Amino acid sequence: MSATPDSARALVELRELAALTSDEQGAQRIAWTPTWAAARAWLRERLAELDDVAVQVDAAGNLWATLPGESARSVVLGGHLDSVPNGGWLDGALGTIGSLAALRAFAAAPRRPLTIRLVDWADEEGARFGRSLLGSSACAGTLDPAGVRDLTDRDGVRLADALAAHGVDVERMRDAGAELRDVAAYLELHIEQGPVLERLGLPLGVVLGTFGVERHRVRFSGAHAHAGATPMDARRDAFLAAARSALALRDEAARRDDVRATTGSVTVVPGIVTAFNGAAELSVDQRALEAAELAALLAHAREASEQIAAEEGCSVAWERLLAIEPVPFDGELMALADAVVAEVAGVSHRLPSGPLHDAAEMARVLPAAMLFVRSIGGVSHTKEEDSSEADVELSIRALHELAVRTATLAEHGTAVAPNP
Amino acid sequence: MSATPDSARALVELRELAALTSDEQGAQRIAWTPTWAAARAWLRERLAELDDVAVQVDAAGNLWATLPGESARSVVLGGHLDSVPNGGWLDGALGTIGSLAALRAFAAAPRRPLTIRLVDWADEEGARFGRSLLGSSACAGTLDPAGVRDLTDRDGVRLADALAAHGVDVERMRDAGAELRDVAAYLELHIEQGPVLERLGLPLGVVLGTFGVERHRVRFSGAHAHAGATPMDARRDAFLAAARSALALRDEAARRDDVRATTGSVTVVPGIVTAFNGAAELSVDQRALEAAELAALLAHAREASEQIAAEEGCSVAWERLLAIEPVPFDGELMALADAVVAEVAGVSHRLPSGPLHDAAEMARVLPAAMLFVRSIGGVSHTKEEDSSEADVELSIRALHELAVRTATLAEHGTAVAPNP
Repeated sequence: MSATPDSARALVELRELAALTSDEQGAQRIAWTPTWAAARAWLRERLAELDDVAVQVDAAGNLWATLPGESARSVVLGGHLDSVPNGGWLDGALGTIGSLAALRAFAAAPRRPLTIRLVDWADEEGARFGRSLLGSSACAGTLDPAGVRDLTDRDGVRLADALAAHGVDVERMRDAGAELRDVAAYLELHIEQGPVLERLGLPLGVVLGTFGVERHRVRFSGAHAHAGATPMDARRDAFLAAARSALALRDEAARRDDVRATTGSVTVVPGIVTAFNGAAELSVDQRALEAAELAALLAHAREASEQIAAEEGCSVAWERLLAIEPVPFDGELMALADAVVAEVAGVSHRLPSGPLHDAAEMARVLPAAMLFVRSIGGVSHTKEEDSSEADVELSIRALHELAVRTATLAEHGTAVAPNP
Repeated sequence: MSATPDSARALVELRELAALTSDEQGAQRIAWTPTWAAARAWLRERLAELDDVAVQVDAAGNLWATLPGESARSVVLGGHLDSVPNGGWLDGALGTIGSLAALRAFAAAPRRPLTIRLVDWADEEGARFGRSLLGSSACAGTLDPAGVRDLTDRDGVRLADALAAHGVDVERMRDAGAELRDVAAYLELHIEQGPVLERLGLPLGVVLGTFGVERHRVRFSGAHAHAGATPMDARRDAFLAAARSALALRDEAARRDDVRATTGSVTVVPGIVTAFNGAAELSVDQRALEAAELAALLAHAREASEQIAAEEGCSVAWERLLAIEPVPFDGELMALADAVVAEVAGVSHRLPSGPLHDAAEMARVLPAAMLFVRSIGGVSHTKEEDSSEADVELSIRALHELAVRTATLAEHGTAVAPNP
């Protein structure tokens, strides 16, 4: 193993950042707000202590810190300081501050063949305007400025105006792609946001990729009538059709351990005690690591809902809200990560990521990999989010070691793809 | 058959009342409002044309019209002019105007052994203050003034104050019970508010009684988490527990044709696309004609929900909102009604009433019976509510004939119970 980073200091800094940018409801580092800007200023102060590190902000508002090496080719370590409202202390911040700890260790190393960079992505959460992965998708070239510029927050402020106040011109955000010119690989550490590692009793995991998502609004139409007057066999109860369909798509997904299916939003009309419902609407969110599997889940759910609706005297209509392709991480980097996790934590385990991450945007254009650290209770986007201090320290050691080995591979090997 | 009432005139009057008290959204005769008072004034004008008829309003605001007979013992025919907002032209009004037509026929008859009375109940619907059967329950003695006096409408007006503006003192409403002193039987004609007669192809039916009701709020508690991060087998999805329970109680009720079970109100928390739900709440409304059957339905639903909740890693809590005993109508009057319907319409059919009616309050203290007329499409509490003109005319003839035979039975027989 190489020299380890000062993970104890990173823990202190995570607590310090939380104290600076949280209230009693949790972290409040919503992107493009003063609290987020304060978090960024705090990060700049920490980076300014490193003599050789240059800091700049790209055209999308992402903050880059560059520690030059013998070669301009770089390994990038990333995270995001922005949080959801009432968020946790680790979601995003662990990636950025873990990267800071690794950067310090590289700065203290006797030799540095590759350039090492930290990126703090802007607006991973999309908490204010509803568009997540904003900065990283601009950098990857997948963002369409026309699709986001007129988004408004709940006060009616346009995204374009809010970003301009932070020096970002929406029309030019994709210029941030220039930052990727010499990047050999992208690495990210994140809290799991789920219970898988905790259930396995493992502190660290290697992420296989981010799920593809099929998200639909599904409307069931029957006819409402009085709860007392209408015999059971004369009903066209749209809620019961929706209930059966929700169970059918759950049962199908429950047959595999690497897919998800969720009915989160549920509304009924008229929704009163004295009538059954003539209309019901479900949101359906299906996720899988393989495109074919995702398509099969969707087809099954549609067919089941149509058969059930017919049986219940109802009709059903599906409307797609969102479709995201699965993004697998780089096979060679995952193998490196497996080796590092096995050394640091004893056992490695590969798992999919349910939520999206900036690393998925990077994986579209670069070799990328991601580490998860165990979450206590698997809770996310709440002030209760937590990992043990021991796990956090272990995860920062693993991130640094993975960066060292990735740099070595990029220097000597041909396995990590050369930059196109 | 006796001389028939002028049902064609009754149809004209129903249309006239609708024109006077409706807008483009339907009937607006909400009790204790100026439009309702206008309907009452219109009724008083029609009654004033009958020389022998005396009109008064009782302590609960119910309007009584009395056509004296040789005996003070009376047969009462009832209805209610009040409607829900955006209501139909027949719900309630058919009972009152049908009774008016019958009263006219009695007034024209050569001999009248019994007194015949019309009652127009006040506030059957409870549309403004949420307490249905207000006037009839005061008359039957089942109303507790303390339980209603402080109810408020959506503008914050107290029930007690609204009634006082119409000359009713809530504390003395039960004095209306004095009206029942010499009543031998109570009869009511109403539109079905359901599809049963239409499905059977029958214009008229005899009502068995009003359902007993068990109404509960049922809360399922699990734990919400991210739609992507949480494996299917690690979920405690409260909505799916609620969905399974709703289906279980429907399936149990569907095994019999004389019970009902409805989940009308459905809410979930957090109710967002990207999470499954940690909490779900259903309203459960169960109805049956027999108390034992109702209790069995409730017990089955509770047990099923508890088993399902446990299987889904959730808990469940039931809270009773309402319990109403089933009210059967008088067996002898139902037999008379069967004979009348068979003569007038060819075939009689007995069916339960899902909704409550003023007749159910009367059935607690008097021999009572009720006739239903077929509803087109079974729709209720909407301006689309309708019955054919032929069916309406037939129903008024049947009501009058039933009143004639009930009076004869009360005069000569011992079968209709003497007044206690």
